[in-house]
Amino acid sequence: MLDTETIHRRHAVSSAVGAQGLEALVVSALVNVRYLSGFTGSNGALVLEPDREPVLFTDPRYQLQAAQETSCRVRVSKGPLVEAVSKHIVRRRLRRIGFENTRISFEAHRALDKDLPMGVTLSPVGTVIEQLRMVKSATEIELIRKSMLVASTAFKRAIRRARPGVTEAELAAEIDHQMRRLGAQKPAFETIVASGPRSALPHASPTQLALKPNQLLLIDMGASRAGYASDMTRTLFLGSPPAKVQRVYRAVLQAQLAAIASVREGAAAGDVDLAARRRLRAEGLDRAFMHSTGHGLGLEIHESPRLGRRDKTMLRAGMVVTVEPGVYLEGFGGIRIEDTVAVTTHGCEILTPDSKELTAL
Amino acid sequence: MLDTETIHRRHAVSSAVGAQGLEALVVSALVNVRYLSGFTGSNGALVLEPDREPVLFTDPRYQLQAAQETSCRVRVSKGPLVEAVSKHIVRRRLRRIGFENTRISFEAHRALDKDLPMGVTLSPVGTVIEQLRMVKSATEIELIRKSMLVASTAFKRAIRRARPGVTEAELAAEIDHQMRRLGAQKPAFETIVASGPRSALPHASPTQLALKPNQLLLIDMGASRAGYASDMTRTLFLGSPPAKVQRVYRAVLQAQLAAIASVREGAAAGDVDLAARRRLRAEGLDRAFMHSTGHGLGLEIHESPRLGRRDKTMLRAGMVVTVEPGVYLEGFGGIRIEDTVAVTTHGCEILTPDSKELTAL
Repeated sequence: MLDTETIHRRHAVSSAVGAQGLEALVVSALVNVRYLSGFTGSNGALVLEPDREPVLFTDPRYQLQAAQETSCRVRVSKGPLVEAVSKHIVRRRLRRIGFENTRISFEAHRALDKDLPMGVTLSPVGTVIEQLRMVKSATEIELIRKSMLVASTAFKRAIRRARPGVTEAELAAEIDHQMRRLGAQKPAFETIVASGPRSALPHASPTQLALKPNQLLLIDMGASRAGYASDMTRTLFLGSPPAKVQRVYRAVLQAQLAAIASVREGAAAGDVDLAARRRLRAEGLDRAFMHSTGHGLGLEIHESPRLGRRDKTMLRAGMVVTVEPGVYLEGFGGIRIEDTVAVTTHGCEILTPDSKELTAL
Repeated sequence: MLDTETIHRRHAVSSAVGAQGLEALVVSALVNVRYLSGFTGSNGALVLEPDREPVLFTDPRYQLQAAQETSCRVRVSKGPLVEAVSKHIVRRRLRRIGFENTRISFEAHRALDKDLPMGVTLSPVGTVIEQLRMVKSATEIELIRKSMLVASTAFKRAIRRARPGVTEAELAAEIDHQMRRLGAQKPAFETIVASGPRSALPHASPTQLALKPNQLLLIDMGASRAGYASDMTRTLFLGSPPAKVQRVYRAVLQAQLAAIASVREGAAAGDVDLAARRRLRAEGLDRAFMHSTGHGLGLEIHESPRLGRRDKTMLRAGMVVTVEPGVYLEGFGGIRIEDTVAVTTHGCEILTPDSKELTAL
């Protein structure tokens, strides 16, 4: 990440925190520490003060790495980071401190509270950093695009091996291996390979079940590359798809296209969900679509906004979201089609390059 | 997991909780829910009452799976589990409730506290479940052994490909792929492949750097199989190791063997650490060993006890720990040797079957 970018982010967070009348913010969620400092280690905390050099706390294992990755001042300490953070707050005579209430653990909050002198207050700042993270920079969108290309290429290579006799677990392992070979550090989430009636379980772990002819094959996958996630789903058919499969597939695809057509700056997140749901209702399939239409993604695989009925978030250019309606029918199976898309001023750019025609293997 | 085993565990936890004068315990950490119920889904909470059938809370996605995996009563609800749990507590008229203060999030605790009527108290129970989990059953040790064998076999297969020109990331991907092929669900942690001077970073992520001749190659890896972790590190040399590498390697190996020799029921965790550190001090290398000697592992990759200077835990037969001293010298590189061992009455059993002789590739 360009350092100018993390500096800009820290400035935005510091301003928001300052506007709440706080003198400092303790950032304890690792993913937010990374977002604001560039530090990728597994133990870190950040103290931000408006108009002051931020301080990154970590342990001796990450001394070198922290110095390489961040422009923040680095404080290395052996004990619990909370202790080092509270000593720093005392030394700096800070009194009004913000903390990440939606992220911090009960004990970390208690330890912080206990270590701080009377008169120092800890105030919840909610999702101030997550709100900022919703809108991606051009650099971030490029990173998500590259992550998506890794996943997409791995998908194309792996499905060449999808044939009767191969197990779901083998195919999932092949997908993950191809993603790694193409530069991913890991899958963005546990790769889903669900065949036949198991495709009706929206969160199926791959099993030792072998693929059989004349079955649905649902693959939901994404890469984590340079910290950024991607996410796509394709549903294939092993053999010549019967009329019902074609009909349901077409309905899901129409719903996905309608949802994508509704994505643009200024649209409400809930309206995208509604667009997909309305199209499925016209086919009598809306009750078989029991999850929301999509979610934001970036440094995490699930971020705000949620493209769900109740989410009133206004979409903004630079947000990156999944669009993934699905229909799940017990006995029959499930069909889901998912792209990762970047919101633009007048619509969106689809980052998932794969065809959405029903593929017969 | 045998259900008799989870019943036994629940009984032990209920007794401990009852002895603290509590009427029920809310188990919110997923890994502890799994340990006490067998349920492996990604959303669950458990309410234990002494002498009463335990209740597992989850959401509709896991209805089928929960019924298959656990003998607990299952309550499926759509909203946040905290709400369902507090309704249950109210309905059962429970008043003195224990909660996992070291595991629960700040917000989950707040929501629970807010939903419960006046007069109901929430008391921290600390690490009562983690204490129990420290000592593994024979079944669990077998599962860790199998996980270790998967990792060890994958290591042997993968290092056949370790040669100049292959990147760290490619080698790490090969290790992970071999583990998957051998039955692991995933790596127990991000596989570390660090070559040359990068081996001096104890937690180096694999990079696109190609291996070069006459360099150190440090590999730290483990499998997650049937829920159980394994962990091993070997440091190899690409070429004929020069005198300094041989000398440092021998010192680390002597430290590792001294630490292993000190493992037995009744020894203090800190004494094992001391045994390794003392041997390195004799070689003037103790300041280059800046992490603790090892850690427990099981359902999680890091569990109690910590084999560190300050840990006074008395080792008991059935504990499974890593023994992994290392020496890290900037410019030179790092050498770490790690086995997973099971504590026995008179010593320990080494579960990592690989040779610890300095291997020249």
